[in-house]
Amino acid sequence: MNNALYFQSGGVTAVIGATAAALIEAHRQVSPGRLFAAEHGLSGLMNAQLVDATALPESMRLALSHVPGGGLGSGRTLLMPYDENPQQWEQVRDVLVRHQIGTIYVNGGNGSMDTAAKLVELSDRFYLDLKVIGLPKTIDNDLEGTDASPGFGSALKYLSVSLMEAARDHCAMATKPSVFIMEVMGRHTGWLASCGAVARLPEAVASPLMLFPEVDFEPAHFVRAIRQRFETQHAVVCVVSEGIHTADGRFYAQQNVAAKYGHEQLGGAGLAVAELLRTELGIKVHVAIPDYMQRAARHLASATDIAQAEAVARHAIVLAQSGQTGLMVNIVRESDAPYRWHCAAVALTDIANRERSLPRDWINQAHYTLRPEALAYLRPLIAGEISLPWSEGLPEYPWVEWPKIA
Amino acid sequence: MNNALYFQSGGVTAVIGATAAALIEAHRQVSPGRLFAAEHGLSGLMNAQLVDATALPESMRLALSHVPGGGLGSGRTLLMPYDENPQQWEQVRDVLVRHQIGTIYVNGGNGSMDTAAKLVELSDRFYLDLKVIGLPKTIDNDLEGTDASPGFGSALKYLSVSLMEAARDHCAMATKPSVFIMEVMGRHTGWLASCGAVARLPEAVASPLMLFPEVDFEPAHFVRAIRQRFETQHAVVCVVSEGIHTADGRFYAQQNVAAKYGHEQLGGAGLAVAELLRTELGIKVHVAIPDYMQRAARHLASATDIAQAEAVARHAIVLAQSGQTGLMVNIVRESDAPYRWHCAAVALTDIANRERSLPRDWINQAHYTLRPEALAYLRPLIAGEISLPWSEGLPEYPWVEWPKIA
Repeated sequence: MNNALYFQSGGVTAVIGATAAALIEAHRQVSPGRLFAAEHGLSGLMNAQLVDATALPESMRLALSHVPGGGLGSGRTLLMPYDENPQQWEQVRDVLVRHQIGTIYVNGGNGSMDTAAKLVELSDRFYLDLKVIGLPKTIDNDLEGTDASPGFGSALKYLSVSLMEAARDHCAMATKPSVFIMEVMGRHTGWLASCGAVARLPEAVASPLMLFPEVDFEPAHFVRAIRQRFETQHAVVCVVSEGIHTADGRFYAQQNVAAKYGHEQLGGAGLAVAELLRTELGIKVHVAIPDYMQRAARHLASATDIAQAEAVARHAIVLAQSGQTGLMVNIVRESDAPYRWHCAAVALTDIANRERSLPRDWINQAHYTLRPEALAYLRPLIAGEISLPWSEGLPEYPWVEWPKIA
Repeated sequence: MNNALYFQSGGVTAVIGATAAALIEAHRQVSPGRLFAAEHGLSGLMNAQLVDATALPESMRLALSHVPGGGLGSGRTLLMPYDENPQQWEQVRDVLVRHQIGTIYVNGGNGSMDTAAKLVELSDRFYLDLKVIGLPKTIDNDLEGTDASPGFGSALKYLSVSLMEAARDHCAMATKPSVFIMEVMGRHTGWLASCGAVARLPEAVASPLMLFPEVDFEPAHFVRAIRQRFETQHAVVCVVSEGIHTADGRFYAQQNVAAKYGHEQLGGAGLAVAELLRTELGIKVHVAIPDYMQRAARHLASATDIAQAEAVARHAIVLAQSGQTGLMVNIVRESDAPYRWHCAAVALTDIANRERSLPRDWINQAHYTLRPEALAYLRPLIAGEISLPWSEGLPEYPWVEWPKIA
């Protein structure tokens, strides 16, 4: 059982390819076994859709390190409790045994870390002597036990820059009261909406109004806040988390736009807020919905985020080599300014399925802003610009061709 | 009358500040008079909201050259025919005479060039000896008489890169048939939707399906085309112009999402197409709406576009200095590869209020793609990357403080 397996689980990021590429390199340096990768997450593992990452040519590995989306394929299938689906466990076991896999690297968020924890149970149940290491990844930044999750810093940088740029456009056009809304991802947590505080905006805009899922959205109060802004400015900017909800716990998007379509997919909170403002204030509202663009914008990735995405991979190899299991690599902050950090580890069972919210006391709900202490945490995560290979006006994002298992 | 006046008119762009900054520099070099600028377009001129661009400190002029949105304020007020609004003409005349303005530079699109042409009439009617020069600008690229309009190349580059990145994310997540839609600006012309052809996408995506306002949108035919794609691929990508319409001439967005809100503002065509696909095919659809982000993304501006944005300003000064009037500076293409071009001029009356569409014979309507000849035209316009000043992880976009008129 001296081979290893890597898979990605949950929504991908702009820098998850950097984690994969660093893991491959670090594995080669220390292990004589193969490193396989499962396409499309746990379902790829169950169906033995495996590729040989160890055999990836170096030029492809370097390309992998900078393609958005990870170049492998992620998936949303999770490992169920054994009692509910023993067949799923047996399928996983059979693939592990057949391919002599003794180490699994799970690159994902809090749901995926629960799957990683269950893989430890699977190892015990089937006497496999399997080592399981989690690698953090999520643009939502809602993983417990780590200073930040790789993917978040780059998404935050992209949204902050986008907001700065769109706000300048909005200022140039605002000859009367009008609102620009940017709807950001975040079903349950408002980390990405904090871009409204991170962005450096002109005084003419003042601070954007931010709507977070951590607090109840009160439409009438919000309309009053916007009306108040119009007493001193024309161009108002808002950042709306897709997951904002009213006091009854219902998603605001689903009460409005999305509900008309009768489907569950979120997205549309920004449109619903726009409609509220148009109806109540009779103003013009523009809405941007970056959607996948915010988690794929590798051209604006944070150098700090990339450094952490690579570091968690190297540390995962160190942990596995020293025989440890049941851990997720985390990032530990040593200081804010200068930002110093190192990698360590937390028990999977301590963080699986938990959700880290934006601290409630950072939110100034009366003014829809964040208190300054939030910035000390956030700013280091977007630091540093990267370069990409470009040709004919476009970045080089080659398609990663994975070697089949020999 | 040896002073000059500059104003911006219509939607702004990521590079209109580069035009303004180049105009100020070129004016200083050749003219002893002042160059004033009107805030928020013609209405700023009428209301004498003027600033002294000649007195802009050099550090601010350099900042102006790279802030998105132009840093001055544009406007949508146009000059009406004299018979319909003589008072408007008299207001303009009074400001011109009071400030000794003998030259006007109008930086705008086809509607604004009609205003520029009317300013020539105004000069004749009031015996003003005014010179009027138009400077092209529009992300829509719908100005006649010029190879391209400054602003378009940068918006096209931004959308092409965004599509490449979002498509990689979409591929990574597509374990079953699903569609990613990017809705782009373009009420009447599909130039920006051509990003679907410009973007280099993996084979797994094949070419995106593009919906242009130049052709009628046939929902049933489109659904069949998507279904056909699913025979060979899971991840399908579409680019939808905001202005697509059905054969009866009605905007598709207004027949659906936007219509429910009872307002005229476009936007929502992508959501309407998404709903069509969800209903007809029962699939998952993600929609991105970059909105202002696509015309403000200075961080991804095309170096070629910036060079042209600056060149049209310098040429405008040359034309005015040589006593010419009633002209718009244009860009003349000499060759595709290498892309060679120079500035010349066309009569305002030849291009005002005309609209250049994407050539109908470039559109392969059966497959929702563009024919290869489109790329020979488009590709040079996105060439070249630029650098920006960055600090603490964000670009430096200072607020331009304009000197008051002494």
